[in-house]
Amino acid sequence: MIKTSELKKLVSKIFIKHGLSKTDAVISSNALINAELVGAYGHGLSRLKMYCDRIKKKVINPKPKIRIKKISQSISHIDANNSIGFVAADIAIKTAIQKAKKTGIGMVAVKNSGHYGLSGYYAEQAVKKNLITMIYTNAPPAVAPHGALKSLFGTNPICFGTPTGSNVPFILDTSISMINRGKIRVAARNNQKIPEGVALDKFGRPTTDAKKALEGVQLPIAGFRGSGLAWMVDILSGVLTGGNHAGKVKDPFDDFSGPQNIGHLFITFKTNLFVNNFNSRIKNNIKTIKKLPKIKGIKEIMYPGQNKYKRFKMNSKKEINITNSIKEDLKILNN
Amino acid sequence: MIKTSELKKLVSKIFIKHGLSKTDAVISSNALINAELVGAYGHGLSRLKMYCDRIKKKVINPKPKIRIKKISQSISHIDANNSIGFVAADIAIKTAIQKAKKTGIGMVAVKNSGHYGLSGYYAEQAVKKNLITMIYTNAPPAVAPHGALKSLFGTNPICFGTPTGSNVPFILDTSISMINRGKIRVAARNNQKIPEGVALDKFGRPTTDAKKALEGVQLPIAGFRGSGLAWMVDILSGVLTGGNHAGKVKDPFDDFSGPQNIGHLFITFKTNLFVNNFNSRIKNNIKTIKKLPKIKGIKEIMYPGQNKYKRFKMNSKKEINITNSIKEDLKILNN
Repeated sequence: MIKTSELKKLVSKIFIKHGLSKTDAVISSNALINAELVGAYGHGLSRLKMYCDRIKKKVINPKPKIRIKKISQSISHIDANNSIGFVAADIAIKTAIQKAKKTGIGMVAVKNSGHYGLSGYYAEQAVKKNLITMIYTNAPPAVAPHGALKSLFGTNPICFGTPTGSNVPFILDTSISMINRGKIRVAARNNQKIPEGVALDKFGRPTTDAKKALEGVQLPIAGFRGSGLAWMVDILSGVLTGGNHAGKVKDPFDDFSGPQNIGHLFITFKTNLFVNNFNSRIKNNIKTIKKLPKIKGIKEIMYPGQNKYKRFKMNSKKEINITNSIKEDLKILNN
Repeated sequence: MIKTSELKKLVSKIFIKHGLSKTDAVISSNALINAELVGAYGHGLSRLKMYCDRIKKKVINPKPKIRIKKISQSISHIDANNSIGFVAADIAIKTAIQKAKKTGIGMVAVKNSGHYGLSGYYAEQAVKKNLITMIYTNAPPAVAPHGALKSLFGTNPICFGTPTGSNVPFILDTSISMINRGKIRVAARNNQKIPEGVALDKFGRPTTDAKKALEGVQLPIAGFRGSGLAWMVDILSGVLTGGNHAGKVKDPFDDFSGPQNIGHLFITFKTNLFVNNFNSRIKNNIKTIKKLPKIKGIKEIMYPGQNKYKRFKMNSKKEINITNSIKEDLKILNN
């Protein structure tokens, strides 16, 4: 168990040791610890060693010269110069917020970036400034296009955030993969079955055998439709921005042959462009939906982001519990 | 069997008879016949009588005073004055195209509109002008929010279109409902089962019994995630625009107690904002994905919109086959 504030300092120190500026180290540390606090451990400290390894192997640039090119009052293009993703995304969302505040709408594309953790983390920043936001990023191959027998699309999250007129933002941050690979790995290790319809074996046949699924491919949500959504995200975050696409984003854990060149797209806009009572409208929207009759066993109809917010609040009060393997990472990386 | 051109003339004539201006009648007729040609019969002539009924009952305004309010160089708000949805959407997409051509990005919100048919039809217009587009609209209750025992979200399509560097546009136009209600109705009539996981009975239990499903609710794609996407569309097209939301859009076939006040949101932007070789990039993207190894029985990995385009091309060469019930409608409405 360790205090959040201490852990943040330690992780910052580790990033500084690996060559990041103090500012960039703090940005990256905050993003990683936030993932721990919301319970998204796959985006938290379990990635710290990977980031440091990529810096050492020179496929993340610890001292990037990030260039922001103004396309118009509303639009900018950022070349992240292979920075750690957190730093590029932080600049991008801040730029998108400024642009939306000034002109009503902001659109910022990023290229030559890396994995930036949770899209929802950046969405929250825009929502705190009373803006609606849509965020897209691509990722290494994990999901097979509909009809294909090979993974190509990333888990390509679709992220949408909006103020709710309350402290708890509406943050949808949804992968388009039916299941994440980590869960299949755990099931295979424990000889457990995986649900139907989430994966195919290496011959392209549906399977509930976790080991066979690991040799095969993961499926997108909703078949052709989810595959189309993943493709959309690949186009918006990769083809459009100048980032890698069509399966070319390298796996950050396994492939050190070069930078990832991930692309991101951030769109932000004001809530009061078309109505002057957005807050009361959305409050009413949420209230109406929460009042619907519920399926047995369901206590409350939750909107996206509510659970994450609860976990964040709860975990922020406590010390953070870290696994032995992460303790070991921290010790080695701090040496 | 009837020639497309003749059918278009006949439908225009019917709309004019019901009070639409010639221009608006042609716009509406073209949209309806397009739905027939792409094989989306649920959005085609089967709706003609409904539109005419709504005009007669004064819940569609045949001579609307549509007002376009300029919010900025990039943003406009349209009050459709309860026009037939086709006409509002036609003005909206044209406005969004103009704005994107001028400033790089266009955003047009519409309120007080009605059902406009296929989002993809409007996306195609933007793509033909070499723009990327994202279109959202809400619709009458059809799908239960995750955890609820009552429908509230519409089928709330998510639509995304982009040029592909070829004649065949990439048009994703996907409902967030697992199955459409029409299909459940047909299965119930024929005592057929419906697939697992698409509907619940009136007690909230999963069912494959079509009759029980009709008494229950339809499910969104991908559980909580699809429910979140539907909610996002309700916010973007309803809460934000000034349109109805939270289940208040009336069913156009059953509820003549007032106008629908549907909201739509159209976002358009240039493909070359961030790269100067978008066309070759997307060609390469599509080529790479099409070359992947395929599941047995799959001849070609198709991108969204390809099938619809093929059907359109094929059907455009032939005369249109219309059912007896539609023949009857046409006869009565033309009298």
